[in-house]
Formats: sequence, structure tokens, C-alpha cells
Amino acid sequence: MKKFTSVHDIGDLKTALEKAKYVKENPFADQESGKNKTLLMIFFNSSLRTRLSTQKAALNLGMNVIVLDINQGAWKLETEKGVVMDGDKPEHMLEAIPVMGAYCDIIGVRSFAQFHNKVDDYNEVVLEQFIRYSGKPVISMEAATRHPLQSFADLITIEEFKKTLRPKVVLTWAPHPRALPQAVPNSFAEWMNATDYEFVITHPEGYELDEQFVGNATVEYDREKAYRGADFIYAKNWAAYRDPNYGKILSTDRSWTVDAQKMALTNHAYFMHCLPVRRNMIVTDEVIDSPQSIVIPEAANRVVSAQTVLKEILK
Amino acid sequence: MKKFTSVHDIGDLKTALEKAKYVKENPFADQESGKNKTLLMIFFNSSLRTRLSTQKAALNLGMNVIVLDINQGAWKLETEKGVVMDGDKPEHMLEAIPVMGAYCDIIGVRSFAQFHNKVDDYNEVVLEQFIRYSGKPVISMEAATRHPLQSFADLITIEEFKKTLRPKVVLTWAPHPRALPQAVPNSFAEWMNATDYEFVITHPEGYELDEQFVGNATVEYDREKAYRGADFIYAKNWAAYRDPNYGKILSTDRSWTVDAQKMALTNHAYFMHCLPVRRNMIVTDEVIDSPQSIVIPEAANRVVSAQTVLKEILK
Amino acid sequence: MKKFTSVHDIGDLKTALEKAKYVKENPFADQESGKNKTLLMIFFNSSLRTRLSTQKAALNLGMNVIVLDINQGAWKLETEKGVVMDGDKPEHMLEAIPVMGAYCDIIGVRSFAQFHNKVDDYNEVVLEQFIRYSGKPVISMEAATRHPLQSFADLITIEEFKKTLRPKVVLTWAPHPRALPQAVPNSFAEWMNATDYEFVITHPEGYELDEQFVGNATVEYDREKAYRGADFIYAKNWAAYRDPNYGKILSTDRSWTVDAQKMALTNHAYFMHCLPVRRNMIVTDEVIDSPQSIVIPEAANRVVSAQTVLKEILK
Repeated sequence: MKKFTSVHDIGDLKTALEKAKYVKENPFADQESGKNKTLLMIFFNSSLRTRLSTQKAALNLGMNVIVLDINQGAWKLETEKGVVMDGDKPEHMLEAIPVMGAYCDIIGVRSFAQFHNKVDDYNEVVLEQFIRYSGKPVISMEAATRHPLQSFADLITIEEFKKTLRPKVVLTWAPHPRALPQAVPNSFAEWMNATDYEFVITHPEGYELDEQFVGNATVEYDREKAYRGADFIYAKNWAAYRDPNYGKILSTDRSWTVDAQKMALTNHAYFMHCLPVRRNMIVTDEVIDSPQSIVIPEAANRVVSAQTVLKEILK
Repeated sequence: MKKFTSVHDIGDLKTALEKAKYVKENPFADQESGKNKTLLMIFFNSSLRTRLSTQKAALNLGMNVIVLDINQGAWKLETEKGVVMDGDKPEHMLEAIPVMGAYCDIIGVRSFAQFHNKVDDYNEVVLEQFIRYSGKPVISMEAATRHPLQSFADLITIEEFKKTLRPKVVLTWAPHPRALPQAVPNSFAEWMNATDYEFVITHPEGYELDEQFVGNATVEYDREKAYRGADFIYAKNWAAYRDPNYGKILSTDRSWTVDAQKMALTNHAYFMHCLPVRRNMIVTDEVIDSPQSIVIPEAANRVVSAQTVLKEILK
Repeated sequence: MKKFTSVHDIGDLKTALEKAKYVKENPFADQESGKNKTLLMIFFNSSLRTRLSTQKAALNLGMNVIVLDINQGAWKLETEKGVVMDGDKPEHMLEAIPVMGAYCDIIGVRSFAQFHNKVDDYNEVVLEQFIRYSGKPVISMEAATRHPLQSFADLITIEEFKKTLRPKVVLTWAPHPRALPQAVPNSFAEWMNATDYEFVITHPEGYELDEQFVGNATVEYDREKAYRGADFIYAKNWAAYRDPNYGKILSTDRSWTVDAQKMALTNHAYFMHCLPVRRNMIVTDEVIDSPQSIVIPEAANRVVSAQTVLKEILK
């Protein structure tokens, strides 16, 4: 594996899941592979789970880890080409990226959608510059359009908890006070479409995701119909994708909050969320504190997905 | 040892001091015990000594270390239960803590008293949530009411420098321009009360500490009487504890600054302070720069106390 | 080697270059020497290359690394002696430095010139306190007047790329929107003067550097004459050194920007810069993107210079 930025990099999902299972059961079995290898983790945005779980995964593999928060202790980076750099950004990505690449063996990058320019976001201008200029394998630690380490952990978790071969998995939009990128729902949809699960997306009108991610999923505006018979409810907020509303909040309708009443429509479904989650906006305390909530094992699997990916790249 | 949050977790003090002595003389003797174990250090507040010495202690034991400053690079955490999270805090401690626990073997937490609510501070609401929800051994890296790694290092230092079996140890309040928590004096008192030393606390009226920490100590308002014959002067500022003045500054009286005149009353006492110390507020340059000042060996012993505690937890 | 703060600490340059060559070819050959040794890196200022390359160098040597950004997560430090510390700085360097020294084996310090007081800057008041009070070997990670890890990497790079035994190396001032310290040009000049290269400095009048650094270099105000026949163009901005203009910007004349027209005057010279570089202020896109630009290999050599220095200190 030369990079890990989407489901397309992981190869056959069954094989990937078997590798993940092995890693989970044998976390310290491959420490020779990481010896004298350095993972550099670059954060343009905040992180808790990704920061900790990816470090842990690399340490389990015997790697060295260097963490850099671009906005704390480093230089602000210019991304535009051809500009006269007389403003507040003293360094250009064109230098910073190959320099970073010179000091490590694998680079992880977190760079969210900025909602300034949809074309830039969906072209992954930051992530793509890292792939192009760093000279090293790049893993996405959540980019503008996808969060593949999360989606892989989600898939591992569903495989661990599913009670039927082909569960019904429902991705539901939920309200949130801030405009959030589509990376998590896009990516989750992309991974679910690569399985043979029954996959349904439900959201208020106007929140349609990019068709390349929706793929063959069933989009169901009738929320109750979507919930009915679900084995997994995967909640997430996102801001509008479609023009002219890209990046805008169209609704904060709390009838979309995942609550016990709606969960009662399901096939005793598990509740999932990538975290951080706003309680009583995205999901009620009652649901997230219930035994059906698997958000903690889901987060714990972030070590497993990251370690599986790093191990493949180290090969 | 399952946690380390007060003197009550350390067991017999003589045994603890022997273990500390061994650790100090053999810092790298137990590297197998920390192999593939990860210490996660969580800071809600600033830190110099604790940050560095606890990392050093864990590295000496062969552990991996991950440091997280909650206010830099992570998400702001909600602590109240039952709220609708539509404000500036995107993550709840109820998720963040078990997630952190999933990525490590031991958690260190620094969370100071906030002086908003005395009951919350003295119930250690943050630390207790870590103990309850992380699923991992928790060590206090200074919580709202105690700073046990400091107190243990203080005890080790007194044992190293004492010239009589049962020295007279005096904790003296000293002035400071900011309102500071009672964690260090509370904790120091708790540890001194667990020894057979002669232990005296002196402070202006109104600065009485919580009785559970004062214990059998002699509280002496006559400062000169307190200093007389002292073998160790331990200076520290704290804000008022008693209602209705909790968290308030009642005095900035510089006659309480530790100076050469007052030190002359003692039995050629050593000067101690947990650091950081404000020179010429808490203590004069003359005293802290004198050979009787042992603040640096005291700080150096922070590695020893932390390593002794981590080693016990790893067992 | 007990410290590394200037070219005077490195000894014979030929031997140092041979050691650097060995380190570059055998990066993991000396891991026993760093075992159980800890490098503490203290940053008072931002850093990308130094932060990453020095960590990488220490990890290559098997060392542990602890990074501390003084302005993030630690306490603000007082540097003046004799003051009553009743302001916003809770800790004095007189305590902080020996405490830091107690927790590590080697200390790296980054502390830029502040332009408040030329005497303080040129006396290296911060760096010198670390040397005096830490009790441990100190390496400069760029101080007020020099950046020796950069200059050593520059020298290694010139040795790798030079086509004649005694190349002509030209240090040219270039415009910049902020007032920058003289550490990089001072240090580069000091190292170039220690070689047998032909070394020329060119800058607008008023930008003369301190004579102790200029040494035997040719100072050439006729920029075209300076460029003519150059094998290496080393660009850098700096603020004025001479009184009464210390720390001031006297010119932002973009005719000093390194461009293709001026490079055409040279002997097909390589372009060098310590980075971060402001494109189209210091150098045009055309020049820095050309094959003659060696800024990335130059930055990559920062691992080599740091590792060579750390290895010598560990001996």
C-alpha cells in the first residue's frame, strides 16, 4: 500500500478485515517492521481519537512518532501558488511538504474541508499536495472529503457486532449547531457501498451528499421507514453539499435527534457515531448511555484500523 | 496499586521510601515492566515539572508516552450531565474519558480547582470521572485538592536532607498576586501527618485549610513561634478555603515573604517550595539562592516519586 | 563536545564533515550511545525544520525526546534578576533551567533575538543562562545571534554539491515584510569564514552585519559584481544591525529578490535558503522551482548536522 486515503486503497475488504482481526489479537507481533521507521503526524485541525489512536498504533508497531500541530509552534503555511508572500504566512506548502517528507517514513495528514471553495475542498488540495510533494506514503487522518481510518474502524465494529450476515445499516443525519464537513458521511457511505450490507441514508431534503459517495445506497427521506428494521443506526451531522448551499446549515430540526422512540422502530439496533458527539443534539443521553450504544468499542477500533494500515504500508 | 491520588494509595510510607531509594539508584532497572505499556498524560492546565518529570519516569521504565493538552489541539470538553450540547464544547467527558482509556494502560490527569464551586472542587469531579469511566489506573498529576506526586517527592527530599530522626517541618503561607488552589498545602499536610515528624502550619487568620487535611498538625498563627527551631520551611501560597471566602485573596502581606531574617529564627532550616515560585513575593532572592535552598533537588525527586508510583501500578 | 552553540564548538571542519558523512550513510549505527539518554527540546519560538530534524536525529541515535513549547502548556518565564515577581510571569529562569536540566541528558534551546535590547540579544542572555544553570550540555536550536545546526547543514550541503575545490559562495540580503534576526547570516558567515571558500556578502547599505561575524569576508555593495561567477547563492533577509537602526527594516526593495536574471550572472549557481522562505519576496518561484534550487536537500541535511552533534555530545 503506497497511500491510504479512501476505501480504494485497502484492496479486498474481506482480506482487510482478516488482517485487522489478526492485528487486534496480536498488537505487538510486528514490532520489527516499524523499527527505525518514523511516522510524522501533521494536524491542521483539532483531534482527540485520531491523535491518540494513530500514535498508539504506530507505537505498537515499534515505530517512532513525531506529532506536529501546524497552528501551534510551527509556521502558518501558504497554499496558493504564484503569490507574493508578504502577508502573515511565512512558509509555503511547496517547501514545507518535501521538508516534512525528508524527516520521516510515513506522513499522516489531517486537513478538513474549509467551506471557502467547494472545488478546492472536493479536489483535496491539501492532501493531494502531500501525496504529490512529500515523497513518502501518505495516510489521511481525515481530509476534506473522507475519513477512511474512521470508516475502516466502523466496518470492523459492525463486523464484530452484527447478528446477521447482511445487516441493515442506516446512516442518519442529525442536527448540530455548527456547519460540519461531509467527510465522515461520504467516507462511511463509500465503505458501506463496498460491502454487501443493506445500506440506507436518511436526511432532510437539501442534505443530499455527493453522488459519487451515495453510489447504490438507498436514500430514504421517510425517516421512520429508514429506521424500521435497522441493525445499526449510524448518526452524523453534516452541512449541505449541493449548490448554492454548500457548507450551509439548512436545518437544526431536533426531531432528527436519535432518541429512544426512533430506536424502538429498529431491529434492536446498535447506535454508532464517530465522536465527538453532541449529546441531546445528535443523540439523547438515554440512547448513548444504553447498552446498544457501541461508540466506545467503535472508537477503540481506531487503533486497529490505523495499525492495520500502517503495517501494510511498512511492508 | 490501582490508582494514585493521595497518600492513602501509597501504603506504608517506610516501604514506599525504600522503593523510591531503589528507583533513584537504579533508574533503568525495570525497563521490561513498561515494555508495550503506554502512559497517557492529560493536561487541563499548564505544567513544567510534572510534564517533564512524569514523562522521564515513564521513559525510564521503558513505557511509551503520549501527551495531550486538552486546550491545544483537542476538543473542549463538556463536564455537566444532561445538557443539550449546543454551545462551544463539542465533546462530553462521558465519551472522551473511556476513549482515552481505550488507547493506553495508565492515565495521568492534571485538573486544578476552578474556584467556581467549592463542592465540585472538593469532590474532585474531573479526577473522579477519570477514575470511574476510563477503565484504567489513574494517577493524579495535581487535581483540585491534592498534588500527591509533589508531596511524595517532598517527603523523599526531607528524608534525604534531614539531620534528626524527627525534624520540625513548617508549612508557611506566603503572599502571591493570584488566587491559587489549596492542592499543594492540603496534600503536603496529608503526607506530613502520615509521618512522625513535628508538623506545624502557619498562616494569617482566614487562611485555615480544610480540617481533613490539617489533621493533627499544629496550626500556629504566631509566625515567629512557628519558625523557631524549624528544620524545614515549606512555603506556599493558597487562596482562602473557608466560606464565604473560598478562592479569594484575603492578604498580600509581604511580611509573610520568607526572608533571611525569618530563616535566622530556624534551626538552620532548609527552604522548600514546589515551584514555580515567585521570587520576592513567596521568598527573597537571598533565601532561594542560599545553600539552604533545596528546591532543585526537590524538583529532581519528582522523577523518583513518579517512577516509583508508575512501577507499582505496572506490577 | 560539551556544548554546541557556534562553529568554535565543532573542532576541525574536515573531521566534522567526515563524521557527518558517516552519520548520513549509517543513520542507525549508534543506537547504543543514546540508550536511556533523553534530549529535552525547549522552544521559545516557532519551529518546523529544527523541531522535526532534531527529534529525528535523536531518535536515530536511540535517544528519548521530550519537546516543550514554553508558550504552550508551560509557565511564562521571568528572565530579569532581582524583580518582585508580581506580574504575569509565575516562574523564573533561575529555577526553570536547573529543573529542566534535572530531567534530561542534553538540552536543546531555541530563543530568538527579541530586538528589545541589542546588548541582551548579542550577549545571548537566554542561551547563556541555560549553559550556566542547566548542568547539562546545551545545543543551540537557533539563538539570538547564531543558528549553528543550520550552518553546519549548509556546509554539508555545499560540500555535497560543489564542483570546484574552492567554490565562490555569496550571501545575499533579500527583502521581507517583517524584521528578522541576524542569527542565520551571522552564523553562515562564521562557518564560511572557517572554510577556504571564496566568501562574499552583498546587501544594501545600512545592513552591515556585526564585524565579528563578517570577519574576512568580502562585503560587496555592487550586487551584480557579487553574483558574477558565484557557485552558490545563499539568500536571507535580516533587519539592520548597526545603531541606531538595530532591529529595523531599512528597505523592502524587491530589486534584491533573487530572480532568474540575477542567477544568469552566476556560474550556474545553486540556490540555497534556510527556510521558511517567502516566495516572490526572497526568491522568485522560477528560481526556487528550478533544478538549481537545493533548499530541500539542504533542509534534509538538518538531520545529519543534528545527529553528528548529538553523537559527539553523547560520547
